[in-house]
Amino acid sequence: MALTEDRVADPGTLVDLLQRVEALEAQQDKAIQKKNKMTIIAWGGDLDRIWPTTILASTAAASGMEVSVFFTFWGLFAIVKPEVRITGANWMQKAMSVMNPGSAQKAKLSRYQFAGAGPLMMKKLADEHHVEKPEALMEIASDMGARLIPCQMTMDLMGLTRDDLLDGLEEPIGAATAIAEMRDAAISLFI
Amino acid sequence: MALTEDRVADPGTLVDLLQRVEALEAQQDKAIQKKNKMTIIAWGGDLDRIWPTTILASTAAASGMEVSVFFTFWGLFAIVKPEVRITGANWMQKAMSVMNPGSAQKAKLSRYQFAGAGPLMMKKLADEHHVEKPEALMEIASDMGARLIPCQMTMDLMGLTRDDLLDGLEEPIGAATAIAEMRDAAISLFI
Amino acid sequence: MALTEDRVADPGTLVDLLQRVEALEAQQDKAIQKKNKMTIIAWGGDLDRIWPTTILASTAAASGMEVSVFFTFWGLFAIVKPEVRITGANWMQKAMSVMNPGSAQKAKLSRYQFAGAGPLMMKKLADEHHVEKPEALMEIASDMGARLIPCQMTMDLMGLTRDDLLDGLEEPIGAATAIAEMRDAAISLFI
Repeated sequence: MALTEDRVADPGTLVDLLQRVEALEAQQDKAIQKKNKMTIIAWGGDLDRIWPTTILASTAAASGMEVSVFFTFWGLFAIVKPEVRITGANWMQKAMSVMNPGSAQKAKLSRYQFAGAGPLMMKKLADEHHVEKPEALMEIASDMGARLIPCQMTMDLMGLTRDDLLDGLEEPIGAATAIAEMRDAAISLFI
Repeated sequence: MALTEDRVADPGTLVDLLQRVEALEAQQDKAIQKKNKMTIIAWGGDLDRIWPTTILASTAAASGMEVSVFFTFWGLFAIVKPEVRITGANWMQKAMSVMNPGSAQKAKLSRYQFAGAGPLMMKKLADEHHVEKPEALMEIASDMGARLIPCQMTMDLMGLTRDDLLDGLEEPIGAATAIAEMRDAAISLFI
Repeated sequence: MALTEDRVADPGTLVDLLQRVEALEAQQDKAIQKKNKMTIIAWGGDLDRIWPTTILASTAAASGMEVSVFFTFWGLFAIVKPEVRITGANWMQKAMSVMNPGSAQKAKLSRYQFAGAGPLMMKKLADEHHVEKPEALMEIASDMGARLIPCQMTMDLMGLTRDDLLDGLEEPIGAATAIAEMRDAAISLFI
């Protein structure tokens, strides 16, 4: 169908055009719009999970993407201050904190732990190949605008307070807000 | 460029408008439209994976999102009826079922199992902080319209029948249908 | 509001229409357009992770979706050639390769290893139920156009060369390119 001036001047075409615009609007209203944004649910606390989390977060932030990382379950222990040792208000919470020494620096590997030799080996290889370590990547990501957010429910369960966690984090949120974060993110990952 | 009545009455503008609507339509047709929907591939059967799965599913359903959860691999054992013990038709399937006691209630932690003390401790902490347990969350999610769907292939592999699984589940599906579920979901997670 | 010829002939309507088209264009420009595409970050090297990765990749490719799989961390060992044994340039890299025997064929289960009996049992069950094994699924996926891509950084860390990896892979990429792959994919999963 050629686009002639005759055709476009025809009121029939205009009715058609209006209807097509309305259809486009209806479909756009219904569809979830995705922003240039990445949201990670950082569930794992192991070094081999915190590493990809922080590599992806810092790389995405560097490329200009909006980034939010929601630290929950074992992942929460990766944002405990390195100098904080035993946390929690009762013996169960204290026991959990002993089993999960805080901070990414002390994170274990999910395999090949070898009493700490595995993580050391990985970090030595990283040094030799100029790959930044998770704690540095987290700071880089944060400096570039990535939002690091603790999970309120896990904090309650584990008895962790705001003071136990790294400085510069966002206010804690719950699952509903984390879901809202993911809904408009172009990329959502559970790591 | 000011929107004057002169400009819009010009047939040139109308041709332009028609072309722009056609371009919008073409791009909208090509793009995958995302619905207000969350799809989870529930691959893990451990308590610390089933918990986030059911927290996210019930919270999303409560917020009015469409939710589908596809239980596959180890995750399938989380939707076996609690009273069902050994399942399967041959010794290998029976062995698998012994190693994976059915239902979310009996799920282990991926770490800190301590002969069952770890999961008990987690559940006690949850009780104290009024956090619902996975089996309750699954029911809540289902009541609010979340669709819980078993993986046909895993059922075949593990020798699980429809009777071994919880009531109220959807009909089993395969990978192709699970992919179709994720394709129009605003959030897809592998947990 | 009825669509009468009177209304559409009215220059006021045309101004309105032009503004609505501009609004649609602005929103479409801002939103990330999702293609009919699935991108998997294949992080895990265990049989029970490589299996869902290759099932999803081959099924999606068969349904006409664009597919890219980014093999990183432990996942990289799943695309080492089966005949390649010890890899790496120094003792740490060699030790890593011994702990991660290359190829999907040699992948372990994340649980129930039983000195190899677990994976064997799973594969025997798969044979009986005509489920293809990961190495076959990877070939099927690749034949159907799925792009299998190694992570450059992990290759450097682990001392793996292009020759250690399967034939038919894409050129290695880094995190920034992997993020770009996910950004326009309708489905992105971290497995």
